Amino acid sequence: MPLDPNADVEITAFRWVPRFAEGLVRDLRIRWALEEMGRSYRVRLLDATKPRPAEYFCEQPWGQVPVYKDKDVELFESGAILIHLGLQDERLLPSDKASQMRGIAWLIAALNSVEPAIFPLLMTDTFNRGEEWTAGARPKFVARLEGRLQCLSDSLGDKEWLEDRFTVGDLMMVAVLRQLRGKGMVEQYPNIAALIERAQARPAFKRALADQLAVFEEHKEGAAA
Amino acid sequence: MPLDPNADVEITAFRWVPRFAEGLVRDLRIRWALEEMGRSYRVRLLDATKPRPAEYFCEQPWGQVPVYKDKDVELFESGAILIHLGLQDERLLPSDKASQMRGIAWLIAALNSVEPAIFPLLMTDTFNRGEEWTAGARPKFVARLEGRLQCLSDSLGDKEWLEDRFTVGDLMMVAVLRQLRGKGMVEQYPNIAALIERAQARPAFKRALADQLAVFEEHKEGAAA
Repeated sequence: MPLDPNADVEITAFRWVPRFAEGLVRDLRIRWALEEMGRSYRVRLLDATKPRPAEYFCEQPWGQVPVYKDKDVELFESGAILIHLGLQDERLLPSDKASQMRGIAWLIAALNSVEPAIFPLLMTDTFNRGEEWTAGARPKFVARLEGRLQCLSDSLGDKEWLEDRFTVGDLMMVAVLRQLRGKGMVEQYPNIAALIERAQARPAFKRALADQLAVFEEHKEGAAA
Repeated sequence: MPLDPNADVEITAFRWVPRFAEGLVRDLRIRWALEEMGRSYRVRLLDATKPRPAEYFCEQPWGQVPVYKDKDVELFESGAILIHLGLQDERLLPSDKASQMRGIAWLIAALNSVEPAIFPLLMTDTFNRGEEWTAGARPKFVARLEGRLQCLSDSLGDKEWLEDRFTVGDLMMVAVLRQLRGKGMVEQYPNIAALIERAQARPAFKRALADQLAVFEEHKEGAAA
Protein backbone atom coordinates (compact mmCIF):
# COMPACT_ATOMS: atom_id res chain seq x y z
CA MET A 1 0.00 0.00 0.00
CA PRO A 2 1.81 3.15 -1.16
CA LEU A 3 0.18 5.50 1.41
CA ASP A 4 2.43 5.32 4.47
CA PRO A 5 2.97 8.13 7.02
CA ASN A 6 6.58 6.98 7.52
CA ALA A 7 7.54 6.86 3.82
CA ASP A 8 10.61 8.82 2.71
CA VAL A 9 8.68 10.22 -0.26
CA GLU A 10 6.45 13.19 0.59
CA ILE A 11 4.06 15.02 -1.72
CA THR A 12 1.80 18.00 -1.06
CA ALA A 13 -1.91 17.94 -1.89
CA PHE A 14 -5.03 19.94 -1.11
CA ARG A 15 -7.31 19.09 1.79
CA TRP A 16 -10.40 19.97 -0.23
CA VAL A 17 -11.22 21.43 -3.66
CA PRO A 18 -14.46 22.47 -5.43
CA ARG A 19 -16.29 19.69 -7.26
CA PHE A 20 -15.06 20.73 -10.75
CA ALA A 21 -11.45 20.07 -9.69
CA GLU A 22 -12.02 16.72 -7.97
CA GLY A 23 -9.84 14.04 -9.53
CA LEU A 24 -7.94 16.63 -11.59
CA VAL A 25 -5.56 18.15 -9.03
CA ARG A 26 -2.00 17.48 -10.09
CA ASP A 27 -0.88 15.43 -7.10
CA LEU A 28 -2.96 12.69 -8.82
CA ARG A 29 -0.27 12.39 -11.49
CA ILE A 30 2.37 11.64 -8.86
CA ARG A 31 0.16 9.35 -6.77
CA TRP A 32 -0.57 7.39 -9.96
CA ALA A 33 3.12 7.02 -10.88
CA LEU A 34 4.04 5.99 -7.33
CA GLU A 35 1.25 3.39 -7.40
CA GLU A 36 2.61 2.04 -10.71
CA MET A 37 6.00 1.66 -8.97
CA GLY A 38 4.52 0.32 -5.72
CA ARG A 39 6.49 3.02 -3.93
CA SER A 40 5.26 4.28 -0.56
CA TYR A 41 4.56 7.98 0.01
CA ARG A 42 3.08 10.29 2.59
CA VAL A 43 0.96 13.38 1.96
CA ARG A 44 1.30 16.88 3.44
CA LEU A 45 -2.06 18.64 3.13
CA LEU A 46 -2.57 22.32 2.31
CA ASP A 47 -5.68 24.47 2.46
CA ALA A 48 -6.77 25.40 -1.09
CA THR A 49 -9.37 27.86 0.21
CA LYS A 50 -6.75 30.25 1.63
CA PRO A 51 -3.63 31.82 0.09
CA ARG A 52 -0.64 29.53 0.49
CA PRO A 53 1.80 30.54 3.29
CA ALA A 54 4.65 32.74 2.02
CA GLU A 55 7.26 30.07 2.77
CA TYR A 56 5.46 27.58 0.51
CA PHE A 57 6.45 29.70 -2.49
CA CYS A 58 10.08 28.85 -1.73
CA GLU A 59 9.16 25.24 -2.40
CA GLN A 60 6.73 25.87 -5.27
CA PRO A 61 7.13 29.12 -7.24
CA TRP A 62 3.42 29.30 -8.22
CA GLY A 63 2.00 28.19 -4.85
CA GLN A 64 0.51 25.07 -6.42
CA VAL A 65 0.56 21.37 -5.60
CA PRO A 66 2.36 19.04 -5.68
CA VAL A 67 5.76 19.57 -4.15
CA TYR A 68 7.75 16.32 -4.06
CA LYS A 69 10.59 15.33 -1.72
CA ASP A 70 12.59 12.16 -1.33
CA LYS A 71 16.07 11.42 0.03
CA ASP A 72 17.68 12.72 -3.18
CA VAL A 73 15.60 15.64 -4.51
CA GLU A 74 13.15 18.43 -3.73
CA LEU A 75 11.02 19.16 -6.79
CA PHE A 76 8.11 21.16 -8.14
CA GLU A 77 6.28 20.74 -11.51
CA SER A 78 4.51 17.44 -11.93
CA GLY A 79 6.30 16.89 -15.26
CA ALA A 80 9.73 17.07 -13.62
CA ILE A 81 8.64 14.77 -10.81
CA LEU A 82 7.40 12.17 -13.30
CA ILE A 83 10.68 12.36 -15.23
CA HIS A 84 12.59 11.89 -11.97
CA LEU A 85 10.51 8.82 -11.12
CA GLY A 86 10.57 7.52 -14.69
CA LEU A 87 14.36 7.64 -14.98
CA GLN A 88 14.65 5.33 -11.98
CA ASP A 89 11.93 2.77 -12.74
CA GLU A 90 11.44 0.68 -15.85
CA ARG A 91 7.71 0.38 -15.15
CA LEU A 92 7.41 4.09 -16.02
CA LEU A 93 10.08 4.46 -18.72
CA PRO A 94 12.12 1.89 -20.66
CA SER A 95 15.82 1.94 -19.81
CA ASP A 96 17.09 1.98 -23.40
CA LYS A 97 17.86 5.57 -24.32
CA ALA A 98 15.84 5.76 -27.55
CA SER A 99 12.59 4.50 -25.97
CA GLN A 100 13.16 6.36 -22.71
CA MET A 101 13.43 9.68 -24.50
CA ARG A 102 10.34 8.95 -26.64
CA GLY A 103 8.34 8.53 -23.44
CA ILE A 104 9.68 11.86 -22.22
CA ALA A 105 8.80 13.45 -25.59
CA TRP A 106 5.15 12.44 -25.13
CA LEU A 107 5.16 13.73 -21.57
CA ILE A 108 6.42 17.11 -22.83
CA ALA A 109 3.90 16.99 -25.69
CA ALA A 110 1.11 16.61 -23.14
CA LEU A 111 2.39 19.59 -21.14
CA ASN A 112 3.40 21.96 -23.91
CA SER A 113 1.45 20.99 -27.05
CA VAL A 114 -1.86 19.67 -25.67
CA GLU A 115 -2.49 21.26 -22.25
CA PRO A 116 -1.87 24.84 -23.46
CA ALA A 117 -4.66 24.26 -26.02
CA ILE A 118 -6.97 23.01 -23.25
CA PHE A 119 -6.35 25.78 -20.74
CA PRO A 120 -8.15 28.55 -22.69
CA LEU A 121 -11.29 26.38 -22.64
CA LEU A 122 -11.04 26.08 -18.86
CA MET A 123 -11.06 29.89 -18.81
CA THR A 124 -14.18 30.27 -20.99
CA ASP A 125 -16.04 27.39 -19.33
CA THR A 126 -15.00 27.66 -15.68
CA PHE A 127 -12.66 30.36 -14.42
CA ASN A 128 -14.05 33.26 -16.50
CA ARG A 129 -17.45 31.72 -17.19
CA GLY A 130 -20.15 34.19 -18.19
CA GLU A 131 -17.76 37.02 -19.09
CA GLU A 132 -18.82 38.69 -22.30
CA TRP A 133 -15.65 37.91 -24.30
CA THR A 134 -15.89 34.17 -23.76
CA ALA A 135 -18.69 33.59 -26.32
CA GLY A 136 -16.62 34.94 -29.20
CA ALA A 137 -13.40 33.34 -28.00
CA ARG A 138 -14.64 29.81 -27.35
CA PRO A 139 -15.05 28.69 -31.00
CA LYS A 140 -11.47 29.81 -31.71
CA PHE A 141 -10.17 27.88 -28.73
CA VAL A 142 -12.18 24.80 -29.71
CA ALA A 143 -10.86 24.90 -33.29
CA ARG A 144 -7.28 25.09 -32.09
CA LEU A 145 -7.75 22.24 -29.63
CA GLU A 146 -9.49 20.10 -32.26
CA GLY A 147 -6.45 20.54 -34.50
CA ARG A 148 -4.24 19.19 -31.75
CA LEU A 149 -6.58 16.30 -30.91
CA GLN A 150 -6.75 15.30 -34.59
CA CYS A 151 -2.93 15.17 -34.77
CA LEU A 152 -2.83 13.21 -31.52
CA SER A 153 -5.43 10.77 -32.86
CA ASP A 154 -3.45 10.34 -36.09
CA SER A 155 -0.24 9.64 -34.15
CA LEU A 156 -1.94 7.17 -31.83
CA GLY A 157 -3.63 5.27 -34.68
CA ASP A 158 -4.64 1.80 -33.53
CA LYS A 159 -1.84 1.46 -30.99
CA GLU A 160 -2.58 0.64 -27.37
CA TRP A 161 -0.27 3.35 -26.04
CA LEU A 162 1.51 6.33 -27.64
CA GLU A 163 4.66 4.23 -28.07
CA ASP A 164 4.88 0.42 -27.95
CA ARG A 165 4.22 0.18 -24.19
CA PHE A 166 2.81 2.25 -21.31
CA THR A 167 5.09 5.08 -20.16
CA VAL A 168 4.84 8.29 -18.14
CA GLY A 169 4.09 9.89 -21.52
CA ASP A 170 0.74 8.07 -21.59
CA LEU A 171 0.20 8.83 -17.91
CA MET A 172 0.71 12.56 -18.45
CA MET A 173 -1.27 12.70 -21.70
CA VAL A 174 -4.27 11.03 -20.08
CA ALA A 175 -3.99 13.20 -16.95
CA VAL A 176 -4.05 16.29 -19.19
CA LEU A 177 -6.91 15.05 -21.41
CA ARG A 178 -9.08 14.20 -18.39
CA GLN A 179 -9.55 17.96 -17.94
CA LEU A 180 -11.86 17.81 -20.98
CA ARG A 181 -14.40 15.58 -19.22
CA GLY A 182 -17.97 16.60 -19.90
CA LYS A 183 -17.08 18.73 -22.94
CA GLY A 184 -17.89 16.12 -25.61
CA MET A 185 -14.56 16.69 -27.33
CA VAL A 186 -12.41 13.61 -26.82
CA GLU A 187 -15.49 11.55 -27.71
CA GLN A 188 -15.03 12.73 -31.32
CA TYR A 189 -11.78 10.74 -31.46
CA PRO A 190 -12.62 7.14 -30.51
CA ASN A 191 -9.00 6.05 -30.25
CA ILE A 192 -8.22 8.90 -27.82
CA ALA A 193 -11.33 8.11 -25.77
CA ALA A 194 -10.21 4.47 -25.67
CA LEU A 195 -6.70 5.48 -24.57
CA ILE A 196 -8.18 7.40 -21.65
CA GLU A 197 -10.43 4.46 -20.69
CA ARG A 198 -7.52 2.02 -20.94
CA ALA A 199 -5.36 4.17 -18.67
CA GLN A 200 -8.14 4.78 -16.17
CA ALA A 201 -8.71 1.03 -15.95
CA ARG A 202 -5.20 0.50 -14.57
CA PRO A 203 -5.30 -0.55 -10.90
CA ALA A 204 -2.63 2.07 -10.07
CA PHE A 205 -4.79 4.87 -11.48
CA LYS A 206 -7.86 3.66 -9.59
CA ARG A 207 -5.99 3.54 -6.27
CA ALA A 208 -4.46 6.99 -6.84
CA LEU A 209 -7.83 8.53 -7.69
CA ALA A 210 -9.54 6.88 -4.73
CA ASP A 211 -6.84 8.17 -2.37
CA GLN A 212 -7.10 11.75 -3.68
CA LEU A 213 -10.90 11.73 -3.41
CA ALA A 214 -10.83 10.16 0.07
CA VAL A 215 -8.97 13.22 1.40
CA PHE A 216 -11.61 15.59 -0.01
CA GLU A 217 -14.40 13.45 1.41
CA GLU A 218 -12.75 13.43 4.83
CA HIS A 219 -12.41 17.23 4.91
CA LYS A 220 -15.60 18.33 3.14
CA GLU A 221 -17.41 19.39 6.32
CA GLY A 222 -14.69 21.81 7.37
CA ALA A 223 -14.57 23.28 3.89
CA ALA A 224 -18.31 23.86 3.73
CA ALA A 225 -18.39 25.43 7.21
CA MET B 1 31.78 25.57 -35.55
CA PRO B 2 28.61 23.59 -34.73
CA LEU B 3 27.04 23.95 -38.20
CA ASP B 4 28.44 21.06 -40.23
CA PRO B 5 26.66 19.29 -43.13
CA ASN B 6 28.33 16.01 -42.13
CA ALA B 7 27.37 16.11 -38.44
CA ASP B 8 25.53 13.12 -36.97
CA VAL B 9 23.04 15.45 -35.25
CA GLU B 10 20.25 16.70 -37.54
CA ILE B 11 17.52 19.20 -36.70
CA THR B 12 14.67 20.53 -38.80
CA ALA B 13 14.03 24.26 -39.20
CA PHE B 14 12.04 26.56 -41.45
CA ARG B 15 13.49 28.09 -44.60
CA TRP B 16 11.70 31.37 -43.97
CA VAL B 17 9.13 32.77 -41.50
CA PRO B 18 7.22 36.07 -41.20
CA ARG B 19 9.05 38.86 -39.38
CA PHE B 20 7.10 38.43 -36.08
CA ALA B 21 8.47 34.88 -35.71
CA GLU B 22 12.11 35.65 -36.55
CA GLY B 23 14.38 34.57 -33.73
CA LEU B 24 11.51 32.79 -31.95
CA VAL B 25 11.16 29.55 -33.93
CA ARG B 26 11.86 26.63 -31.66
CA ASP B 27 14.87 25.21 -33.47
CA LEU B 28 16.65 28.18 -31.85
CA ARG B 29 16.42 26.42 -28.47
CA ILE B 30 18.25 23.39 -29.82
CA ARG B 31 20.81 25.37 -31.82
CA TRP B 32 21.57 27.31 -28.61
CA ALA B 33 22.04 24.17 -26.51
CA LEU B 34 24.25 22.57 -29.18
CA GLU B 35 26.36 25.74 -29.29
CA GLU B 36 26.73 25.62 -25.49
CA MET B 37 28.03 22.04 -25.90
CA GLY B 38 30.14 22.83 -28.96
CA ARG B 39 28.41 19.95 -30.70
CA SER B 40 28.13 19.97 -34.49
CA TYR B 41 24.77 19.71 -36.21
CA ARG B 42 23.24 19.93 -39.65
CA VAL B 43 19.89 21.46 -40.58
CA ARG B 44 17.11 20.02 -42.76
CA LEU B 45 14.97 22.89 -44.02
CA LEU B 46 11.18 22.84 -44.42
CA ASP B 47 8.84 25.30 -46.10
CA ALA B 48 6.71 27.07 -43.48
CA THR B 49 4.52 28.68 -46.13
CA LYS B 50 3.03 25.35 -47.25
CA PRO B 51 1.39 22.49 -45.30
CA ARG B 52 4.04 20.05 -44.11
CA PRO B 53 4.27 16.79 -46.13
CA ALA B 54 2.09 14.01 -44.66
CA GLU B 55 5.14 11.89 -43.80
CA TYR B 56 6.57 14.70 -41.63
CA PHE B 57 3.72 14.14 -39.16
CA CYS B 58 5.19 10.68 -38.49
CA GLU B 59 8.27 12.47 -37.20
CA GLN B 60 6.50 15.41 -35.51
CA PRO B 61 2.86 14.90 -34.46
CA TRP B 62 1.96 18.62 -34.80
CA GLY B 63 3.91 19.27 -38.00
CA GLN B 64 6.17 21.74 -36.23
CA VAL B 65 9.92 22.21 -35.97
CA PRO B 66 12.30 21.02 -34.70
CA VAL B 67 12.67 17.30 -35.16
CA TYR B 68 15.98 16.09 -33.73
CA LYS B 69 17.98 12.99 -34.69
CA ASP B 70 21.32 11.65 -33.56
CA LYS B 71 22.83 8.15 -33.51
CA ASP B 72 20.77 7.24 -30.42
CA VAL B 73 17.38 8.95 -30.65
CA GLU B 74 14.71 10.48 -32.88
CA LEU B 75 12.82 13.15 -30.97
CA PHE B 76 10.15 15.85 -31.20
CA GLU B 77 9.29 18.54 -28.61
CA SER B 78 12.07 21.02 -27.89
CA GLY B 79 11.74 20.32 -24.15
CA ALA B 80 12.48 16.62 -24.61
CA ILE B 81 15.41 17.37 -26.90
CA LEU B 82 16.92 19.74 -24.33
CA ILE B 83 16.51 17.13 -21.59
CA HIS B 84 18.21 14.54 -23.82
CA LEU B 85 21.12 16.91 -24.44
CA GLY B 86 21.23 18.07 -20.80
CA LEU B 87 21.46 14.57 -19.38
CA GLN B 88 24.62 13.96 -21.40
CA ASP B 89 26.47 17.24 -20.89
CA GLU B 90 27.39 18.98 -17.65
CA ARG B 91 27.47 22.36 -19.40
CA LEU B 92 23.68 22.11 -19.70
CA LEU B 93 22.79 20.25 -16.48
CA PRO B 94 24.82 19.36 -13.38
CA SER B 95 25.47 15.65 -12.99
CA ASP B 96 24.43 15.41 -9.32
CA LYS B 97 20.84 14.20 -9.22
CA ALA B 98 19.41 16.93 -6.96
CA SER B 99 20.72 19.82 -9.10
CA GLN B 100 20.08 18.02 -12.37
CA MET B 101 16.41 17.57 -11.55
CA ARG B 102 16.06 21.21 -10.39
CA GLY B 103 17.25 22.32 -13.81
CA ILE B 104 14.65 20.04 -15.41
CA ALA B 105 12.00 21.44 -13.05
CA TRP B 106 12.66 24.96 -14.35
CA LEU B 107 12.58 23.74 -17.94
CA ILE B 108 9.15 22.20 -17.29
CA ALA B 109 8.07 25.36 -15.44
CA ALA B 110 8.90 27.38 -18.57
CA LEU B 111 6.89 25.02 -20.77
CA ASN B 112 3.89 24.34 -18.57
CA SER B 113 3.58 27.22 -16.07
CA VAL B 114 4.88 30.24 -18.03
CA GLU B 115 4.40 29.58 -21.77
CA PRO B 116 0.71 28.58 -21.42
CA ALA B 117 0.13 32.00 -19.84
CA ILE B 118 1.92 33.71 -22.75
CA PHE B 119 0.18 31.88 -25.58
CA PRO B 120 -3.25 33.52 -25.14
CA LEU B 121 -1.57 36.91 -25.61
CA LEU B 122 -0.06 35.71 -28.88
CA MET B 123 -3.62 34.92 -29.96
CA THR B 124 -5.03 38.37 -29.05
CA ASP B 125 -2.02 40.27 -30.38
CA THR B 126 -0.99 38.25 -33.45
CA PHE B 127 -2.87 35.14 -34.57
CA ASN B 128 -6.41 36.43 -33.90
CA ARG B 129 -5.58 40.12 -33.95
CA GLY B 130 -8.54 42.42 -34.55
CA GLU B 131 -11.21 39.84 -33.75
CA GLU B 132 -13.95 41.31 -31.61
CA TRP B 133 -13.47 39.05 -28.57
CA THR B 134 -9.79 39.92 -28.13
CA ALA B 135 -10.40 43.35 -26.54
CA GLY B 136 -12.33 41.90 -23.61
CA ALA B 137 -10.08 38.89 -23.25
CA ARG B 138 -6.69 40.60 -23.30
CA PRO B 139 -6.83 42.21 -19.81
CA LYS B 140 -7.70 38.80 -18.31
CA PHE B 141 -4.79 37.17 -20.11
CA VAL B 142 -2.43 39.95 -19.02
CA ALA B 143 -3.51 39.66 -15.37
CA ARG B 144 -2.88 35.91 -15.38
CA LEU B 145 0.52 36.30 -16.99
CA GLU B 146 1.50 39.08 -14.57
CA GLY B 147 0.71 36.74 -11.69
CA ARG B 148 3.12 34.20 -13.15
CA LEU B 149 5.83 36.77 -13.86
CA GLN B 150 5.59 38.12 -10.30
CA CYS B 151 6.09 34.60 -8.89
CA LEU B 152 8.99 34.03 -11.28
CA SER B 153 10.56 37.33 -10.23
CA ASP B 154 10.16 36.43 -6.55
CA SER B 155 11.80 33.03 -7.11
CA LEU B 156 14.67 34.51 -9.09
CA GLY B 157 15.37 37.26 -6.54
CA ASP B 158 18.89 38.60 -6.96
CA LYS B 159 20.34 35.36 -8.29
CA GLU B 160 22.18 35.26 -11.59
CA TRP B 161 20.31 32.16 -12.82
CA LEU B 162 17.20 30.31 -11.60
CA GLU B 163 19.40 27.91 -9.63
CA ASP B 164 23.05 28.45 -8.66
CA ARG B 165 24.39 28.08 -12.20
CA PHE B 166 23.20 28.23 -15.84
CA THR B 167 21.17 25.20 -16.91
CA VAL B 168 18.76 24.24 -19.70
CA GLY B 169 16.10 25.53 -17.29
CA ASP B 170 17.39 29.07 -17.81
CA LEU B 171 17.78 28.44 -21.52
CA MET B 172 14.17 27.32 -21.87
CA MET B 173 12.77 30.03 -19.58
CA VAL B 174 14.51 32.77 -21.56
CA ALA B 175 13.49 31.23 -24.90
CA VAL B 176 9.87 31.25 -23.71
CA LEU B 177 10.00 34.80 -22.27
CA ARG B 178 11.51 36.20 -25.49
CA GLN B 179 8.07 35.74 -27.06
CA LEU B 180 6.97 38.76 -24.99
CA ARG B 181 9.33 41.14 -26.80
CA GLY B 182 7.74 44.48 -27.57
CA LYS B 183 4.87 44.03 -25.11
CA GLY B 184 6.38 46.03 -22.22
CA MET B 185 5.69 43.23 -19.76
CA VAL B 186 9.00 41.70 -18.71
CA GLU B 187 10.31 45.26 -18.33
CA GLN B 188 8.09 45.55 -15.21
CA TYR B 189 10.30 42.94 -13.52
CA PRO B 190 13.90 44.21 -13.68
CA ASN B 191 15.43 40.97 -12.48
CA ILE B 192 13.60 39.00 -15.19
CA ALA B 193 14.63 41.54 -17.84
CA ALA B 194 18.23 41.20 -16.59
CA LEU B 195 18.04 37.39 -16.75
CA ILE B 196 16.99 37.62 -20.40
CA GLU B 197 19.79 40.07 -21.20
CA ARG B 198 22.35 37.91 -19.41
CA ALA B 199 21.28 34.83 -21.35
CA GLN B 200 21.18 36.65 -24.67
CA ALA B 201 24.73 37.89 -24.05
CA ARG B 202 26.07 34.32 -24.04
CA PRO B 203 28.19 33.64 -27.12
CA ALA B 204 26.31 30.38 -27.74
CA PHE B 205 22.97 32.22 -27.89
CA LYS B 206 24.36 34.84 -30.27
CA ARG B 207 25.74 32.22 -32.65
CA ALA B 208 22.49 30.22 -32.58
CA LEU B 209 20.38 33.31 -33.29
CA ALA B 210 22.67 34.47 -36.09
CA ASP B 211 22.53 31.02 -37.70
CA GLN B 212 18.71 30.89 -37.56
CA LEU B 213 18.38 34.40 -39.01
CA ALA B 214 20.97 33.71 -41.74
CA VAL B 215 18.72 30.99 -43.17
CA PHE B 216 15.74 33.36 -43.36
CA GLU B 217 17.89 36.04 -45.00
CA GLU B 218 19.18 33.57 -47.55
CA HIS B 219 15.66 32.45 -48.53
CA LYS B 220 13.70 35.69 -48.25
CA GLU B 221 13.51 36.32 -52.02
CA GLY B 222 11.90 32.99 -52.76
CA ALA B 223 9.39 33.52 -49.95
CA ALA B 224 8.34 36.97 -51.20
CA ALA B 225 7.95 35.73 -54.78
